Order: sequence, then C-alpha cells, then structure tokens
Amino acid sequence: MIDYKVGEDMIDPIVLKGFRDSLPNEEIPKRRIMRTLEDQFQNYGFVPIDTPALEYTQVLLGKGGGETDKQIFHFQDNGGREVAMRFDLTVPFARFLALHLAELPLPFKRYHMDKVWRGEKPQKGRFREFIQCDFDIVGVDNAQADFEILSLMDASFKKLGIEKYTFLVAHRGLFNFYLEKLGVKEESVEILRTVDKIKKIGEEEVLKLLTEITHSEEKAQSIIAYITPEEKDSFLTRLDKLVALCGAECESSLRLRKIYALLEATGIAKHFTLDPSITRGLDYYTGIVYETILDELPQIGSVCSGGRYNNLASLYTKELLPGVGSSIGLDRLLAALTELNSPILANSSSVDFIIYYKEEETAKAMQYAKRMREANINTIVYLDPNKKMKAQYEYATKNNIKFALTFNDTCLSVKNLETRETVEYSSIEEVITQCNK
Amino acid sequence: MIDYKVGEDMIDPIVLKGFRDSLPNEEIPKRRIMRTLEDQFQNYGFVPIDTPALEYTQVLLGKGGGETDKQIFHFQDNGGREVAMRFDLTVPFARFLALHLAELPLPFKRYHMDKVWRGEKPQKGRFREFIQCDFDIVGVDNAQADFEILSLMDASFKKLGIEKYTFLVAHRGLFNFYLEKLGVKEESVEILRTVDKIKKIGEEEVLKLLTEITHSEEKAQSIIAYITPEEKDSFLTRLDKLVALCGAECESSLRLRKIYALLEATGIAKHFTLDPSITRGLDYYTGIVYETILDELPQIGSVCSGGRYNNLASLYTKELLPGVGSSIGLDRLLAALTELNSPILANSSSVDFIIYYKEEETAKAMQYAKRMREANINTIVYLDPNKKMKAQYEYATKNNIKFALTFNDTCLSVKNLETRETVEYSSIEEVITQCNK
Repeated sequence: MIDYKVGEDMIDPIVLKGFRDSLPNEEIPKRRIMRTLEDQFQNYGFVPIDTPALEYTQVLLGKGGGETDKQIFHFQDNGGREVAMRFDLTVPFARFLALHLAELPLPFKRYHMDKVWRGEKPQKGRFREFIQCDFDIVGVDNAQADFEILSLMDASFKKLGIEKYTFLVAHRGLFNFYLEKLGVKEESVEILRTVDKIKKIGEEEVLKLLTEITHSEEKAQSIIAYITPEEKDSFLTRLDKLVALCGAECESSLRLRKIYALLEATGIAKHFTLDPSITRGLDYYTGIVYETILDELPQIGSVCSGGRYNNLASLYTKELLPGVGSSIGLDRLLAALTELNSPILANSSSVDFIIYYKEEETAKAMQYAKRMREANINTIVYLDPNKKMKAQYEYATKNNIKFALTFNDTCLSVKNLETRETVEYSSIEEVITQCNK
Repeated sequence: MIDYKVGEDMIDPIVLKGFRDSLPNEEIPKRRIMRTLEDQFQNYGFVPIDTPALEYTQVLLGKGGGETDKQIFHFQDNGGREVAMRFDLTVPFARFLALHLAELPLPFKRYHMDKVWRGEKPQKGRFREFIQCDFDIVGVDNAQADFEILSLMDASFKKLGIEKYTFLVAHRGLFNFYLEKLGVKEESVEILRTVDKIKKIGEEEVLKLLTEITHSEEKAQSIIAYITPEEKDSFLTRLDKLVALCGAECESSLRLRKIYALLEATGIAKHFTLDPSITRGLDYYTGIVYETILDELPQIGSVCSGGRYNNLASLYTKELLPGVGSSIGLDRLLAALTELNSPILANSSSVDFIIYYKEEETAKAMQYAKRMREANINTIVYLDPNKKMKAQYEYATKNNIKFALTFNDTCLSVKNLETRETVEYSSIEEVITQCNK
C-alpha cells in the first residue's frame, strides 16, 4: 500500500521539463482520433498488442549504445537491472515477435498505439513523452502486403476527414540497384542519409556532400538527376525514367509496378506520387518507403511514414521476418486536424444535456438523468443545486453543452443554450423521443 | 534519430521480471472493456485527462519517502532531476488539479485510464505494470455527487454484462463519530487499518489487535459489534442499528440516508449493502467508502473501490477540493470477465471475413475487400496466395474468422467456416446486402 502524505508543507505542483498534462479539450479529440484509427485498423483485420513501457536496456539498444544512450530514459531498478523506457514501438515489436513467434499466425498484422519516451532536448512542439501509432504486416514479402499498408493509410486519412493528402513513395531497392550500376554501392548508407536531407538543406548542399562521398561530381550529379523527377510526369512515367537511368527493369521496379496497379484497381492511385528523393534515414528499410504530406499543411512535415524491411527481428532471432509498416505521430496529427478544422473534431463536447433542479427535486432529476442516459443521451446533472443560476449556466457554456433541461410539477422545459429557444414537454419519454429524431 | 543495430550478435528477447507482453487474445478484450467503460463515462458526462508517466519524485512522494521509495521506479534523468514513474493516477490527479484549477469548470468530473508502475515484489496475478481506471467528481461535497459515482459504477457493471455484483458501502465519518463516542478517537487511524484487515486475518485476530490498540477488551468488543452487522438486516436496519450504537444521528448517517434514498428512487438499491467493516486503508478518506464484489467470484476481491476525501490536493494547494472517486483495476476485471464468460468478450475476433484468391486475381480480391470494408464489414485478404490451402484455412481458424469468400469468373462463394456450409452469390453487392441483414 502506498502512503499518501497529507497536510505537510506545500509542494509546487509542477510538471517535468519536456512533459505536459493533457486537459479535456485536448484529450477528447485525441481519444476520438485514436478510436477512429482503431476502428479502421480492425476494419482491415489488424489486431492490437501491447508491450511493457520498461525493458532491459540491452534489449532496446542492442550491444551498442553510445549516442543513443543520451536520448533515452534509462536507469538501474531496485534489483540492479539496467532498464530503459521504450523510445519507439518498433524495437519492442521486434523483441515481441522473436519471443512469441510460435503463438502468432503469420502473416501477422498488428497495431499498437501508446506512449514512448525520449530524453532529447525538447523543442517547440516536440516533447519527451508522445504517442505513437504503428501498424505492420509481418511474415510476407510481396506487393499485396505493401499495397495493403498503403490502402489502410489511404482509408485512415479519409476516415479522419482529411481530403487533401499525398503519399510520397520510393523504393530503397531500386535506389540501391541504381547506386550499384553507378559503382558507389559501398557508400549507399551514407548516400541515402544525405539524400534524405534534401528538403532540409537544399539541392546545392546535397550535391556538395554527394561529391565528397562519391569522389566524383559527375556521379553526384547523376544521383541528383535520379532523385529529382520532372514535376509534370505521372507515377508511371517517373518510374519508366528511373528504370531507363538504371538501364534495366529489376525486382524493385517490377514490385512498384504491381503495387501501382493495385492502387489503380482500387481507385486510390491519385493520392500517390513517386518521389525518389524519399529514402527514410533508417538502415533497416529495404523495399518501398513513404511519407505523408497534408497538402494544405506541407510545413508540418510527414504525419505517417514507414516502409518495408527485410528482417525486423534479426537482433533477437535467426528466423527471417520480412515486414512492412507505418508509424503515425499522433500529436502532430492532432495539431494538423485541429488546424484543418476536421469534422471528426467538431463538437468537442461529449455531453448533450445538462439537467438543472432544486435540492428538493433531486430524486426526480436523477430519475430523468437515468432514463436519458439509458437512451444513450450523454447527460450531466448539475451537482451543486445551491449555486447561483448564473454559475450553473456558465458551467454549461464552459463544457460546450447544447441543451438544458429544467422541470416543475407540470412540465419539462428543454432550452437550446445557443439559440435560447425553449420547448416544453409533458414527460421525459417525450423529450427522449424528440432527441432521437 | 535513434540508431537501430542490426546484424550483430543475438540478444535474448526477454521481458523484465514483473512485466509482460499483451497478445491479441488478451489485448482485444482489454480494449473492448476500456471502450465500453469510456462510453459509459461519457454517458455520465465525465471527461478524459492525461498526465505524464514521469513526474518529479518529490511531487509524487511528498517531502517524505521512506518505505514507499522501494515500491516505485525512480531515478535521476540526464539533467540530474530526481524523477519517478507514477504509481497510481490519484496523486498525479491531485497535482493536476492544483496546477490547472483556474481552467477547470467545477464540479469537475474526470476519468483517466492508463498504466501505472510499482516496483514491489511480483506475485501471482500481480505485475509491476498494470492499468488503472479512475473516475472522480471534484469540487462538491454532497449526497448527489456520492450517489452519482455509485450510479455510474452500477451502470458500468451492467454494461460490462455482469449481472451479479454487490457494492459494499460504509462511511468513515460515521465510524469516526462512533470511535469518538467510545473515547478512542486518537487511535482511529490505527483502528481503521486493523479493521480493514478483518477479511484477511479474521475476527479473532482483529479483536486481539484492537484490544492492544485501545487497551480495553470491552472497547475492542464494541468495535467488533459495530463492524459485524446481522446477516438478515437490510441497509436501513443496519444503519438504524449503527446510529443506535452511536447514540444519535450525525451528519454522516444523514448523508448515508440521502444517498440510499437516491439509490432507491433510481431502482438500483438492491446492489448496495451497508458493510461497516469496509474502511479502505488510506488516510485521506473522510466520507463514504466502498468496494465491489462479484457475487460469483468473491475470492478475487474488490474490482472497484474508492470513497470520498475531504481535500485531495492539499499537498499542492491551499484551495479546498472535496472529491469522491473510484478506481477499477483493469487486469483483475478482465480476468473476472473472462471467467464469467461475459457476453462483451464473446466473439474475440474482430474480423468477419477472409478473402482467398489466386495470384492472378489479386486486383479483384483487393477490390472486393475495399467494398466490404467500406460497408463496415471487417475483412482480411489472405496476403500469401502461394501458400497451400491448408495453411490458408488454418490461418482463418487461428484468427477465429467465421466466413471465407472465394470467387471465380462467374460467381462468389461464401463459406461458413464453422458449419462448412457454402452459399453462392452473383456479385459483391449481393454478399454485402446479405451480410447486413
């Protein structure tokens, strides 16, 4: 049993640097987004999992450590174990897969929405605690699985009430194939990471860096040519040009063609752009990679990113586990949806009705509330009938409640708190019938 | 950017002692319970909040420390701050209230469902990470608020499909009033904690301890008389007897009468028993206290407990904030609902349909899936068409999927995977119409 210390000296009720509370006006829309996404994931047959917030440090960081150490919360627990708070949902998922492989039906499609923690310096809009939402398909490496992740992304953005969004797609395998042709395969990791920065540091700077890496301005120029498509070209024209640069079709280009054919067959191709400058920094991607831009808010960056990886769990098991997955940063998404006035965030109150009453009418008020709640009308009874009416009405305003119910011996009055109109009813059942119309 | 170490030596994919993964067969019902509760809370006009997993150690523990230190995860972060992972949702809520009081409409009704962490020794069924679900009404001290918490508890258990449950209610104020009459008010904290153990250690042992505390076997006997009501007595008869023992009505007994009148007026009184042996160990309770017993599983203990406290946030602010609240241990509740075969956990799969197809029919299969998903039928496309049919069908079984869709050029076949019956349709729209019937 934890002891509560009460009545000692005051303690300053402060929150840690880089952390924050979530008040109802933020938490209500956040939970609505999460439920919308969850419904959509289930619609595609994805299932939820959870993993602990704390893991062995070595399990999360691998044998290494170094730079990463400073970015995560790690410590020794009371048993002297080196433990760390998870910094993403991908590494725990890899560990989870290795541990439970025998129990999981493959292909395994999971989603996981929860908090992760990073100790990095807090910046504007970036916090040390944030919610990630990941979804992956593991155990199969084909165009169908790649397509299904993209299709789910498309369906999710539609469900969130976003109309204008673009998925920028590229293929790491195709890029590597090109680099091999160019004779700079050895430097591919460095090249990928440099290319990934082009939107931040500009083409000129990238060209300079690539020249240093490849020891050839010509090669650097031709990498720039690869990653800079003609604006007007369609997805397939761009792909044809990349294949021409490579000198031949390869497995990766054929995979992209298959994926695109499925996007067309299901009528969602218009949201997809081939953008060969997308590489995603992380080493483990091997196939398609993608980012998501909200057309009306390009400055906020990608709200959903990911790609295909050959072997996610290789740190923990010798089983080969190919996968494809995406990650949504929920805080960024919430900020974006708020700015876009998304219809799913409209009507941020979850309460429909407030009932006002006098002390001696308490039983009647509670009976009415019970009936309305049973009829799925979200109802508050104002719990402090001795407060002045002004305070009671202000409470309704602060909570964005639309209707107030008052009553006397002969009738019930429903007041629309926005229009100030009042309608009278003879019974609570009549009020409910009217509400459900 | 976090570096992923790939391809080094293998790392054992183990989970920390006292922690565990949640696989879909556990996570699906857990999320269903949480959503059911959330809907119910919103139905009563409660709003969600969130607080950080990490707080300053001093904020969570108060100036003190001592015994509690060993039970929580605490450490120094990279900035040298003493930080701790929250061990419940009550202390962070108190801190939250003090910090945001000006922004919150009072009475404030919040719920909060999330993980908490304790470093205590793991026991069977008890883990170091678990989910709590708290709901409270703060800012008003009257029978209406007490009743509303009890009413919400009753509605929640009904919604969860539990039929037989009993709320054991007592009043700390009434008990204290009695102890004052008995002249042992000074020892009340010790007495309350001893009485709280009666179901664990038995009446005889409690009598012995109370005799030591009060230095009087007679007083100990009379405390035992107070906390041991006659089986056959009703709520009000028991209350009358307690008042008789006290020698007079008091504010607390009158409060209990008011609450009970509201329980009767709303038809839920039958689920409530007055059990004066309930005290709840914690110091801060001052009014009603309660526990919840599932009649068919009394051995698992209380699944929802709480009470009224005079001044929750007193450690952080001089504002007086009376409150009443409850806490549900979700793991225990899930275990109970599973054992009771609760209808809300029936049909643990969230997938209705699986579509099987041949490689060359991929586009058609994806089009069908899209239509069905748009019609809110949760659908999987089996993503590995080159696997043997046996493996494909096993996958459906492992995922508890009820229907399989196959197709050729002329028709679509829906097979009920339980009954093995097959029905043929001429179009996907016809399948959807049939499903929605």
